[in-house]
Amino acid sequence: MGASTILSDLGTEIVIPICAVVGIAFSLFQWYLVSQVKLSLEKPAADGKNGFTEALIEEEEGINDHTVVQKCAEIQNAISEGATSFLFTEYQYVGVFMVIFAVLIFVFLGSVEGFSTSSKICTYDTTKMCKPALMTAVFSTVSFLLGAITSVVSGFLGMKIATYANARTTLEARKGVSKAFIVAFRSGAVMGFLLAANGLLVLYITINLFKIYYGDDWEGLFESITGYGLGGSSMALFGRVGGGIYTKAADVGADLVGKVERNIPEDDPRNPAVIADNVGDNVGDIAGMGSDLFGSYAESSCAALVVASISSFGNTHDFTSMMYPLIVSSVGILVCLITTLFATDFFEVKTVKQIEPSLKYQLIISTVLMTIGIAIVSWIALPSSFTIFNFGAQKVVKNWQLFLCVGVGLWAGLIIGFVTEYYTSNAYSPVQDVADSCRTGAATNVIFGLALGYKSVIIPIFAIAVSIFVSFSFAAMYGVAVAALGMLSTIATGLAIDAYGPISDNAGGIAEMAGMSHRIRERTDALDAAGNTTAAIGKGFAIGSAALVSLALFGAFVSRAEITTVDVLTPKVFIGLLVGAMLPYWFSAMTMKSVGKAALKMVEEVRRQFNTIPGLMEGTAKPDYATCVKISTDASIKEMIPPGALVMLTPLIVGILFGVETLSGVLAGSLVSGVQIAISASNTGGAWDNAKKYIEAGVSEHAKSLGPKGSDPHKAAVIGDTVGDPLKDTSGPSLNILIKLMAVESLVFAPFFATHGGLLFKIF
Amino acid sequence: MGASTILSDLGTEIVIPICAVVGIAFSLFQWYLVSQVKLSLEKPAADGKNGFTEALIEEEEGINDHTVVQKCAEIQNAISEGATSFLFTEYQYVGVFMVIFAVLIFVFLGSVEGFSTSSKICTYDTTKMCKPALMTAVFSTVSFLLGAITSVVSGFLGMKIATYANARTTLEARKGVSKAFIVAFRSGAVMGFLLAANGLLVLYITINLFKIYYGDDWEGLFESITGYGLGGSSMALFGRVGGGIYTKAADVGADLVGKVERNIPEDDPRNPAVIADNVGDNVGDIAGMGSDLFGSYAESSCAALVVASISSFGNTHDFTSMMYPLIVSSVGILVCLITTLFATDFFEVKTVKQIEPSLKYQLIISTVLMTIGIAIVSWIALPSSFTIFNFGAQKVVKNWQLFLCVGVGLWAGLIIGFVTEYYTSNAYSPVQDVADSCRTGAATNVIFGLALGYKSVIIPIFAIAVSIFVSFSFAAMYGVAVAALGMLSTIATGLAIDAYGPISDNAGGIAEMAGMSHRIRERTDALDAAGNTTAAIGKGFAIGSAALVSLALFGAFVSRAEITTVDVLTPKVFIGLLVGAMLPYWFSAMTMKSVGKAALKMVEEVRRQFNTIPGLMEGTAKPDYATCVKISTDASIKEMIPPGALVMLTPLIVGILFGVETLSGVLAGSLVSGVQIAISASNTGGAWDNAKKYIEAGVSEHAKSLGPKGSDPHKAAVIGDTVGDPLKDTSGPSLNILIKLMAVESLVFAPFFATHGGLLFKIF
Repeated sequence: MGASTILSDLGTEIVIPICAVVGIAFSLFQWYLVSQVKLSLEKPAADGKNGFTEALIEEEEGINDHTVVQKCAEIQNAISEGATSFLFTEYQYVGVFMVIFAVLIFVFLGSVEGFSTSSKICTYDTTKMCKPALMTAVFSTVSFLLGAITSVVSGFLGMKIATYANARTTLEARKGVSKAFIVAFRSGAVMGFLLAANGLLVLYITINLFKIYYGDDWEGLFESITGYGLGGSSMALFGRVGGGIYTKAADVGADLVGKVERNIPEDDPRNPAVIADNVGDNVGDIAGMGSDLFGSYAESSCAALVVASISSFGNTHDFTSMMYPLIVSSVGILVCLITTLFATDFFEVKTVKQIEPSLKYQLIISTVLMTIGIAIVSWIALPSSFTIFNFGAQKVVKNWQLFLCVGVGLWAGLIIGFVTEYYTSNAYSPVQDVADSCRTGAATNVIFGLALGYKSVIIPIFAIAVSIFVSFSFAAMYGVAVAALGMLSTIATGLAIDAYGPISDNAGGIAEMAGMSHRIRERTDALDAAGNTTAAIGKGFAIGSAALVSLALFGAFVSRAEITTVDVLTPKVFIGLLVGAMLPYWFSAMTMKSVGKAALKMVEEVRRQFNTIPGLMEGTAKPDYATCVKISTDASIKEMIPPGALVMLTPLIVGILFGVETLSGVLAGSLVSGVQIAISASNTGGAWDNAKKYIEAGVSEHAKSLGPKGSDPHKAAVIGDTVGDPLKDTSGPSLNILIKLMAVESLVFAPFFATHGGLLFKIF
Repeated sequence: MGASTILSDLGTEIVIPICAVVGIAFSLFQWYLVSQVKLSLEKPAADGKNGFTEALIEEEEGINDHTVVQKCAEIQNAISEGATSFLFTEYQYVGVFMVIFAVLIFVFLGSVEGFSTSSKICTYDTTKMCKPALMTAVFSTVSFLLGAITSVVSGFLGMKIATYANARTTLEARKGVSKAFIVAFRSGAVMGFLLAANGLLVLYITINLFKIYYGDDWEGLFESITGYGLGGSSMALFGRVGGGIYTKAADVGADLVGKVERNIPEDDPRNPAVIADNVGDNVGDIAGMGSDLFGSYAESSCAALVVASISSFGNTHDFTSMMYPLIVSSVGILVCLITTLFATDFFEVKTVKQIEPSLKYQLIISTVLMTIGIAIVSWIALPSSFTIFNFGAQKVVKNWQLFLCVGVGLWAGLIIGFVTEYYTSNAYSPVQDVADSCRTGAATNVIFGLALGYKSVIIPIFAIAVSIFVSFSFAAMYGVAVAALGMLSTIATGLAIDAYGPISDNAGGIAEMAGMSHRIRERTDALDAAGNTTAAIGKGFAIGSAALVSLALFGAFVSRAEITTVDVLTPKVFIGLLVGAMLPYWFSAMTMKSVGKAALKMVEEVRRQFNTIPGLMEGTAKPDYATCVKISTDASIKEMIPPGALVMLTPLIVGILFGVETLSGVLAGSLVSGVQIAISASNTGGAWDNAKKYIEAGVSEHAKSLGPKGSDPHKAAVIGDTVGDPLKDTSGPSLNILIKLMAVESLVFAPFFATHGGLLFKIF
């Protein structure tokens, strides 16, 4: 066994954990570097190597003002505490749900064979005996909980790192753009590597532990591993939705009263919602996104593994080939490590103009290096020819074909990234057109922005379609799963540049609140503008990979439910397709309305404070930040339940009442419809945000003619930005979890639906 | 033959044309009644029965002021001339396209058998000989042109009637709401009956003429009839898109400068874009919508006929059963005739509050009566049992099952109508919530409005899904086609209440421009608010029926292309599905951007006139209406080409390059995705419009707290209304043509694609 591959099984057993450990070590080292920026005043360094003395060389204003440092530390503390307290509240509620759902998984899967404890004949290889369904139920439940916990840890650590880094970025901004950029980027890298390595390691250990029980029954082993993906994505759903509502309720509320009514700047400390707004960035954009991408990673690995287990790898127990998806991810960590050095060590960002290119090079470098990485892995970890399960038949695949599958996913990700950049960066004409439309008011701005978002789906969809066609044609659903993994193989870099955005955003907020000079704010704003684009790119990756992952999971579900065709020309499938395509709209309606409602409450509270606290506008009295934090917390906890329930219950209800054919239709429909809304929503929002920043920055003649801040076009741009907030940070990014989660849930429950599902049709 | 049905073939040959003629006669009679309201002053009536003397009894102000009548006549003339000139320009461009496309149809279909003139063995009944493919090409081309011409005539006549009725409605409004309502509604009925009866009659005559050549070859006969649907829908596409861009460019442009910048009322004669705006209502909402619904009607009839021709009706040459779809439509005309009398004669609308209920009763009465009508038709015109072609097999269907198919479509239409009313009428909480969100500005208004539109999709989609499931399960694609016909069977009433809206809107505009008292304007506004809701209901019907029609056409295409399964689990189909779901976004991006661009030009022109024409604001100088009309005309003609090309070329390109499987995916994808955007776009727009009207009318305490006109919440509401304009009148309603047209085009070209398509896959 394993003889047909160049890499031996033992080698595989060593390579994967080593790469994971290297990733974690690198992440900790980056953390150490970030921590060198001192926030406390207790030990003023004497060796001239700390931030303060060094700073004096470059710039003079306010560096010696130690009260500023003190203030930054205080604000950072408030943000960190707010975020921690929210996440703990959220996890309590979600924890209850997780326990209930874990029981459901156990009961439903256990009931497939009436809780029998005797072994059964395997589904795909009928000459062998497999472990009883009851044990699959037990192990699925365990891996579900493990996935959920790993997701929680990923999100929580990400938040901790981000809130650790934001004030440090602000302080470094006093010394120049270059230093601030490096701190923000390093912190992003901490999160990226920790999540990628952690996800890989837990999955690897779980597989090895489960193997002790399952032994040769790989079919059962990898079926129960799918619970890991379900756990990861369930948590991610609540994280994204809850965090998304939290951050946007605070943001919209703060902007509507502060910027529009009171004419005070963004992040002004007099605004009562300002702390809630900054907390929101960390719980929504950081923790939520971390959980989301971890979920994608876990699911695409699970989808690939479950399809592989019923292919020749599984049949011949070829461990190295079986672990191919994990080896790809391992190499991805090494590639991203080298890529990171290009931004932090090999080249230096010296001016504002170099920020965006530097981040863009990260994408290009990681993609090019990873292509080589995949080629090597495909050569050493795969037999030159093997078979893959393809809906009832086995399909012969060559190793170079699988290389192409992973590669096409990887490069499609890059294309999606660039297209997203083109449509959301204010360096190009689409965003400039949107900014220009502000001349005639908010209405044309909204019309142009919506049109931009709709248009921005075209190329990504073609890129995804080509990836699917190539990978599907070469290696059926296994090909699609590894294409998704290819897109996610550079996840550490993707997360690093993605997390960089909210960290810079927070850094700007802290500068404003600490009363630092406007020059500091200009620097953090420049970092943040690039961050808006990278955030949009990150969302593009998340959506693109979600589309591929969902399709792979859908394929795995169909295989496990033993369906061989999903024929649109049958009423059961077609109505599923139609209703499935409707679900993203239903879900978006819920989340957007939630943000709207919570924002209205926030507006009332902020107005109340401005009207009733004497001296607030003059800056002599302090606002009551805590009440605003509480409003966001309560609203998001309460409002995340209905959309969460919609996503979690739909597969169960459809599967039980209408059966697997209709469920297949629902999955396909929600996939093809959701991916469009998700891309357009996140790009529209990003474009509006940057159109506003374009007018504010006033760099070109054109931009100056629209500005300055407070002009009518600028006011129109602020309205667009506010509309875009829930689109780009709540409903849009949650949609990719919707499509993934429904697919992975269907996959986990497939045996139950196949056995007991379709009650309505059975009765009538 | 025909012996198995109660209604004889001769009876059928008599019933259909008689019903059509009755419809046309009724329509002309209504026209006569409308024409009794005199617009000219040449013949002052002496018998005390005309409008003027009668009016004196009811009200005194301004009735004797004959200069007002003169002014109304002038304005009406200007609108009518503008609309006529635009439609002629549009038809010239579209005419060129039609000729080119007719040549394409002939060449492509003729080439299927290499332009051979010898008979061939029939596809479905291999024991018979069928006419050569070349003749199918000829007849398809002829029916295509006939469909296009009928569509042009329908749209043009509708526009003529509407511009004939608008000033008459204004004049009648002097005598009270009741009289004005009757004139507006009667005029709507003229259009409704004329279109429904005309469409039926032309189709009937065409079938009978084609039969002379085809004789017993019903397969070829009804295949070539499908060209009629394609012609109708192609024209409708350009009508909807061109008209939609025209009307919204003018509307948005007029509002942005007039209402927002200059603070003058809507339809103020000082606004240079005001004539263009009123012309737009007639070319977009009236002519465009007329062509659209005619297209739906033609297509669903064609889809039903082509499926029936290869079922037992066709095989046994059972003419009455074959004509079942046309008999249903014939009875529909009679039912609508009775229904109309309920609004005009049996009951009288006395107060403003009675307008909406009266229009709602129209829907309920027509649906209830039609249910009886369908039952009778299904009983007398169908054998008790027959077989229907179902993708390669024949399926046995009972006549009561077919009754249920038509019935479920009919009632689903009613449900969609009511849901639409609930979400767009300001009598209910959804619109009131949107109005309330204007308190915090335009941003929350837009967020709430978008969320409302998304939410309003849920129930209509379930209603459509149930219709599809029932009709599909009972009678395969024939069932779906007749369900669509069921929804469209009350088309005359649907069109009447739909056309009523823009007529009332125009009447208000004329009152304003003619300088009539604000009491007149209040009355027309009340008519118009109800009209907004009925317009949304009409769009709901159009979309719902389009979904069913498209599915039926899709089914017919699949049958004609000889595919038996459309399996989502094949890469060719899946990528089609994904790209198909993207097309509505692409299309919407184009049309919305077009409106935005054209509106910007309009804004510049209106601003220029206000700034350069001395005395314009004071009302002493006249604006240059003609330039604004020209801007709208040029923009819409130019901008309608790219979206039109996208829709017309996609099936051709996909079919030729990728083949029928991928094309099936594209059709299914665009159908399930497009229907959602179409519903949400039209309801969002309708809700914003009525939220604004809710604040303006200030009927309730809540509404008063948001107003009056010019308050901040009202300004926010105006922005929402402006954003909604292109959504509800351009991109939204055009989308249902997109899905229908791609399907019918694929159906017409199916033999060509099946023979010569899929070049890319053949090469590689």
